[in-house]
Amino acid sequence: MTTFPAQAERVVQLLQGHRSIRKFTEEKIPAATISEIIRCAQMASTSSHLQAYSIIGVTEQSLKQKLAEYAGNQTYVETCSHFLVFCADLHRLDYVSRAQGVDVTETLETTEKFIVATVDAALAAQNAAVAAEAHGLGIVYIGGIRNNPDKVAELLGLPDKVYPVFGMCLGYPDQDPEVKPRLPQSCVYFENRYPDLHSLADELKQYDQEVKQYYLQRTKGKRQDTWTDMVVKTLSTPSRTHMKSFLKEQGFPLK
Amino acid sequence: MTTFPAQAERVVQLLQGHRSIRKFTEEKIPAATISEIIRCAQMASTSSHLQAYSIIGVTEQSLKQKLAEYAGNQTYVETCSHFLVFCADLHRLDYVSRAQGVDVTETLETTEKFIVATVDAALAAQNAAVAAEAHGLGIVYIGGIRNNPDKVAELLGLPDKVYPVFGMCLGYPDQDPEVKPRLPQSCVYFENRYPDLHSLADELKQYDQEVKQYYLQRTKGKRQDTWTDMVVKTLSTPSRTHMKSFLKEQGFPLK
Repeated sequence: MTTFPAQAERVVQLLQGHRSIRKFTEEKIPAATISEIIRCAQMASTSSHLQAYSIIGVTEQSLKQKLAEYAGNQTYVETCSHFLVFCADLHRLDYVSRAQGVDVTETLETTEKFIVATVDAALAAQNAAVAAEAHGLGIVYIGGIRNNPDKVAELLGLPDKVYPVFGMCLGYPDQDPEVKPRLPQSCVYFENRYPDLHSLADELKQYDQEVKQYYLQRTKGKRQDTWTDMVVKTLSTPSRTHMKSFLKEQGFPLK
Repeated sequence: MTTFPAQAERVVQLLQGHRSIRKFTEEKIPAATISEIIRCAQMASTSSHLQAYSIIGVTEQSLKQKLAEYAGNQTYVETCSHFLVFCADLHRLDYVSRAQGVDVTETLETTEKFIVATVDAALAAQNAAVAAEAHGLGIVYIGGIRNNPDKVAELLGLPDKVYPVFGMCLGYPDQDPEVKPRLPQSCVYFENRYPDLHSLADELKQYDQEVKQYYLQRTKGKRQDTWTDMVVKTLSTPSRTHMKSFLKEQGFPLK
C-alpha cells in the first residue's frame, strides 16, 4: 500500500490537468508510442469481453484534409500528427458468428447492443487520451465527425454495423490553455438519490459566474457568456438530426 | 520533455494492468478519496462542455442490496465499499434552459443527444476507474443495472431525461486475477481504412486459442471456450430488449 499515495498523486494530477489541445507542433508521434496508446485503449473494460469497437488511425494527409472538412472545417484534424476515429463496431462480432454458421442479427440490432458498442468505444478512447497525455501529447475529441457520418464512413470504408462515434486529434501541444472549470461536484455527484435541482440553484448560479470569468479572461473580454447561456445557445437548435436515419442505414436500427 | 518517459511508463503500466475486481475487503474508502476520484471523472472531456452525465454514489446498504438483486444477483455490488451509478443526464440541461424560459425538448429528444450523454457518462467513468486504480482500488463495471433499468431509476429517484448507463463497484481488492488477453492490435486498430476481416482470419483464430488457454488456466480446466464460442453464446439470444421502450418512457425517444 505504501507505494500508492505517490502514484495516485501523479495520476490524479495528470487527469485533473486535462485540457483540450487544438494547436500542435509539426513533430510526428513515433509509431511505437501510437501502438502503446492503442494497447492502453484496448485494456479498458469492455462489456462481456465483446470488444465492440475499432479504431482507425488516419495518417494519410488527403484523408485528414477531408475529415477536417467533414467535421466542419476543424483545421486541427488536418494539422495534428495523428487522427484517431473511434468506431462502435458490431461487424467483427457478426463476422465471427457467421463464420460459425450462427446468425446473431436480431441481437445486434437492439438498442442495448448499440449502447454496448458506443460505451466500449468511449472507454477505450478515454484510456487512449490518458495514455497520450502521460506521454506529453495533447488531445481533443472531435464530435464533429458526426456532422457528416455517412461521408466519414464511406471515406474510411466502414462496413455495415460500424459507425464513427467521434474522432481524436493527437499531437505535441503548441499551446498551453487553462483548465476549464467544471460544474461544482455537488451538482454532478449525488449520494444515494438524485436531488431536486431547485436545491442546487445557488451552486449553479455561482458556476455560471465562474464560467463567465473564465471566458472573459481567455478571450480578453470578447466573450462573457455564462454556462447556462452557452447551454441554451447550443441546444436552441437541434443538431445532427440525421443520426437516427444514418444509424439505421449503417445497420443500427435501434430496435 | 525529460520528465515524460518515467511518468508515461507508470501510467501505461497502470492502464495495461487493469483487470476487473469482484472480491473486496471490508475496508471502506475514505470520503476524500471518493471526492478526488469524482473530480478526476469530471475532468474528462465532455461534448460542447455540456457535462451531460451525473453520478450517484450508493452507500446505503439497503440500496446496494436491491441494486445487486436488480443487476442479476451480483453480490459484489453489495459487498464493495462504494457503488457508483453513471447516468446519462439531459435533465440538468433541461432544467437550466427552462429557468431561462427556453424549451429545448426538441434537441434533447434526438438520437444525437442520447449519444452525447451516453459518451459523456462513459468518459467520466473511465477517468474514475483510472483514478481509483491509481489509489490501489479495484473496480468492475456493472452493465447488469440495465437488466432492470426502470427499477434502478425508481430506486435512485432518477428524473425524466436521466438513465443509468452502467454501475461501477469500487473497493480494496481481495483477489488478484490475471489480466485478460485482448484481441491482437491488428484486429482492432486499422490504418486509414477498415479492412476486409477475411484478411485477419488467422489472427482471430490465434486469439481464440489464446482465450481458450486463459480460461483453461483460470478455471483449472473447467472452462475451455474460445473467444468466438463466448461471443456466439452471448449473442445467440437477444438481451435487454426492453431498453428501447424503457428509454422512451424515461425521456429518450431517440428521434
